[in-house]
Amino acid sequence: MPVGDPGAEKETNMSKNERTPMAEVKISGEELFCGRVLSLHKDTVSLPDGHTAEREVIRHGGAVCVIPYDGQGNIWVVEQYRYAVAQTMTEIPAGKLDSPDEPPQEAARRELQEETGLTCDKLIPLGLYLGSPAILDEKIHMFAAVGLHAGRPHPDADEFLRARSVPLEEMVQATLRGQIPDGKTQCAVLRLRAMLDRGLL
Amino acid sequence: MPVGDPGAEKETNMSKNERTPMAEVKISGEELFCGRVLSLHKDTVSLPDGHTAEREVIRHGGAVCVIPYDGQGNIWVVEQYRYAVAQTMTEIPAGKLDSPDEPPQEAARRELQEETGLTCDKLIPLGLYLGSPAILDEKIHMFAAVGLHAGRPHPDADEFLRARSVPLEEMVQATLRGQIPDGKTQCAVLRLRAMLDRGLL
Repeated sequence: MPVGDPGAEKETNMSKNERTPMAEVKISGEELFCGRVLSLHKDTVSLPDGHTAEREVIRHGGAVCVIPYDGQGNIWVVEQYRYAVAQTMTEIPAGKLDSPDEPPQEAARRELQEETGLTCDKLIPLGLYLGSPAILDEKIHMFAAVGLHAGRPHPDADEFLRARSVPLEEMVQATLRGQIPDGKTQCAVLRLRAMLDRGLL
Repeated sequence: MPVGDPGAEKETNMSKNERTPMAEVKISGEELFCGRVLSLHKDTVSLPDGHTAEREVIRHGGAVCVIPYDGQGNIWVVEQYRYAVAQTMTEIPAGKLDSPDEPPQEAARRELQEETGLTCDKLIPLGLYLGSPAILDEKIHMFAAVGLHAGRPHPDADEFLRARSVPLEEMVQATLRGQIPDGKTQCAVLRLRAMLDRGLL
């Protein structure tokens, strides 16, 4: 089989002909922790071949992120210390849904304003971002915000942020050099660049 | 202040002049769970303003991901059911480090071969990807693999995968349409496209 022949395919641990369903089915499970931000579950699942396996799963209420674009080549980012990774990160504005039922667009407008003070005329949905789907069910709804208007930030009491405007191209180059570790920010910056290059925005 | 003026900056919850350090300092903590893949910690931290807050943190041993590029416009992806998000995902090959000390390049070659059968002449480091740094410390080392050679996959016993070659441009367009929810795959596909467009690969 030629390497890279489009359509070339290899199936492993399954019959090539019958296209065994890949789903894992929950047999039993327990909630080990339920906290303010996340809950932890340990489930036993049945595998496609009938064997069983254990899955450690973190459940999260969902979140949004927004790349604010000013239409003149600049975006807004925030610098924020992330305790989990013990570093100050450069990220696009983001935050949790207030409840699982909150419309993502509403959450996106709220987080944008809280963290940067900005309001926007339009939110463009960019689809979902799943940061670590092997262990974490967190779904982040990604948006681009355009038609920006300045305002006054009002972050949560335990949030310490610096918001700033930065040329998109500077962020693209930093991303390509591997200097932007935050995954959703890498995605959003490259998405915006590709959309602009292709006349999709 | 003009919206989007590069260098425009807003600081919130901190003095504008003194540039308060943003770090949160651990006061106390407990390990709530230590499993096969991850551990869960609840820490009390001191904030820059002297108040305290609680942080729920998932710790993970680290991982790698690899985008295999055949030099002729095609990459390799795997389809894999992800129990945490209850769906079959299209992802680039990826996997955990065997130990925190394992050199990421070694892990990348192993996971590439296990999941696709491919070996490669060269791995190009693309930097780190942090999927959800607000709650998860998992660091994924990202690589592009070039100079591909076909071989026989040999996945872990509880891994059920379909590996296939697909035109890079098809994956770029799917990503731009929001049809590739996996964050590391979005990043890697757009990184590779941008690097090729800019003559960096």
